[in-house]
Amino acid sequence: MTTTALATLTECIAPQLAAVDRRFREELTSDLACVNNLVKHVSRFRGKMLRPMLVLLSGRACGKELNDAHVTIATVVEMVHMATLVHDDVLDEAELRRKGATINHLRGNEAAVLLGDYLISHSYHLCSSLDSQLASRVIARTTNQVCEGELLQIDNRNNLDLDEETYLEIITRKTAVLCATCCLLGATFADATESQIAALETYGRCLGIAFQIQDDILDIVGDAETVGKTLGIDIEKQKMTLPVIHFLRTAPSEHRKLLRSLIASREADKIDRIRNLILPSHSIEYARDRARELVDKARAALAILPDTEARRVLDTMAEFVVTRPM
Amino acid sequence: MTTTALATLTECIAPQLAAVDRRFREELTSDLACVNNLVKHVSRFRGKMLRPMLVLLSGRACGKELNDAHVTIATVVEMVHMATLVHDDVLDEAELRRKGATINHLRGNEAAVLLGDYLISHSYHLCSSLDSQLASRVIARTTNQVCEGELLQIDNRNNLDLDEETYLEIITRKTAVLCATCCLLGATFADATESQIAALETYGRCLGIAFQIQDDILDIVGDAETVGKTLGIDIEKQKMTLPVIHFLRTAPSEHRKLLRSLIASREADKIDRIRNLILPSHSIEYARDRARELVDKARAALAILPDTEARRVLDTMAEFVVTRPM
Repeated sequence: MTTTALATLTECIAPQLAAVDRRFREELTSDLACVNNLVKHVSRFRGKMLRPMLVLLSGRACGKELNDAHVTIATVVEMVHMATLVHDDVLDEAELRRKGATINHLRGNEAAVLLGDYLISHSYHLCSSLDSQLASRVIARTTNQVCEGELLQIDNRNNLDLDEETYLEIITRKTAVLCATCCLLGATFADATESQIAALETYGRCLGIAFQIQDDILDIVGDAETVGKTLGIDIEKQKMTLPVIHFLRTAPSEHRKLLRSLIASREADKIDRIRNLILPSHSIEYARDRARELVDKARAALAILPDTEARRVLDTMAEFVVTRPM
Repeated sequence: MTTTALATLTECIAPQLAAVDRRFREELTSDLACVNNLVKHVSRFRGKMLRPMLVLLSGRACGKELNDAHVTIATVVEMVHMATLVHDDVLDEAELRRKGATINHLRGNEAAVLLGDYLISHSYHLCSSLDSQLASRVIARTTNQVCEGELLQIDNRNNLDLDEETYLEIITRKTAVLCATCCLLGATFADATESQIAALETYGRCLGIAFQIQDDILDIVGDAETVGKTLGIDIEKQKMTLPVIHFLRTAPSEHRKLLRSLIASREADKIDRIRNLILPSHSIEYARDRARELVDKARAALAILPDTEARRVLDTMAEFVVTRPM
């Protein structure tokens, strides 16, 4: 499914998505030219608006009309997401993001750290314009967990014995909790029932974990041209991914030894050699199966919702997570 | 005045300051050991709690008993301040902070970026526990401005023609706005009158600007032993400070040329040579005079408040800003 196909699918929330885009730009406009120049870079690698879509579709899927709070929250989560991308690129020393140079590469780490701070500050600022503290509290709890996930990840960077459980803990906090929050808040602000809210939260969490596993797979099997960002970075930065964890648990002993020594090595062709080692094994397939299970679980959670176009789009989005080439 | 003298002065808010300390630690406690280990570093360079004191004393100075919201807000502003310190040290590549190694020096830039993010996230999380959105909105507006100040500063790093007006704009946003917010919120949550709130906001803003000018002066005249942090950093990172700006505007033409070439040079003894050039000029004195004017303005703003111990302490704190050796 291409981005265009996704756009056709999300027709039922098109006006609200356009409003998110406007509010995003309005909120970030400063009276300082140097700030606006920097913010311009961010809009160049704005993505597929997955998280705003989750907010809006979750609201719709509960059978209510969307309100202005949905647009606000959808904008807030997109800002939170952009902030984590900008800081992630600093941490990863990445040079390419969505086919454009990263902020840190273009403008230096200092500007990138501050731009991330600026985005996160504005996300809370916008969120605090809502009538109640509810969304602010949930968003801040979510960003607490995102930070913890990132910290747990760097704490385990050189840990070749990382187990799958801790790996799942990391990606849940780092990625899935924000997706779950999008769905939870979308439903909550549509006056959904407790069980609808819980179902959509489950959907978002499973979708997020599957999304991250697919990212891990693409870091090994994808090509930079299609994916549009620097690949092999997880390996380069000795971040353990699911295929690598599985390989180190199940591959023949000689292969495991070789992978361990390659990960620790500084050879120029190490990433290619690691790919060539993992690709013929069952570890990519194992990771694909795990992602598939999660997608099925996400789709199953939608069953209690009324049959609406929004629910069908959420269902298709889940499927897209494991079939996307990028 | 020493830190001990300051502690004696703040006896009237001692129980609340202790509560801030407890809440700070409680809020940052995680179920992840690696997070707690990192947070422990922060508490090592916790400072004089200037910003919590401003919140609590401003509340008291309006003649009301302090409430739990004051303790919450005082904790929030301390977290915001710590977050900016941690990210500042990343930006400055500083190695020493309050006589201890900085997080970035000890644990790497990645941990420092994430720890700053963790602190800022928790500050909003804690703030969103209050009944109303008021404080959240004001705090987020403040952090927006802090980021803008930092961005304006790095945008002018190599600008040897920076004028005093832009310099004041930078330090107002970067430092003074948070001090003003502390006073404003302290007063607001003590049900102060509009004019009391405005007076305390003026006090906080002037105090903050004076504080930053004094920091600039100490970066040139202080010694690292007393000040407890790496000095000469502003010069090293080509951040323009008030004494340098004044020197480049008023010193004899030959001296100005020399300073310009020294700032651009990579000589090992450049900082010492810059100090030796500026010290005999009138530029340190000029900066001192400006700081003194601001302190006088801050003290004058207190006049409309009832005569309380809290007001007297605020008055003494303002005086301390320009007499402190650290």
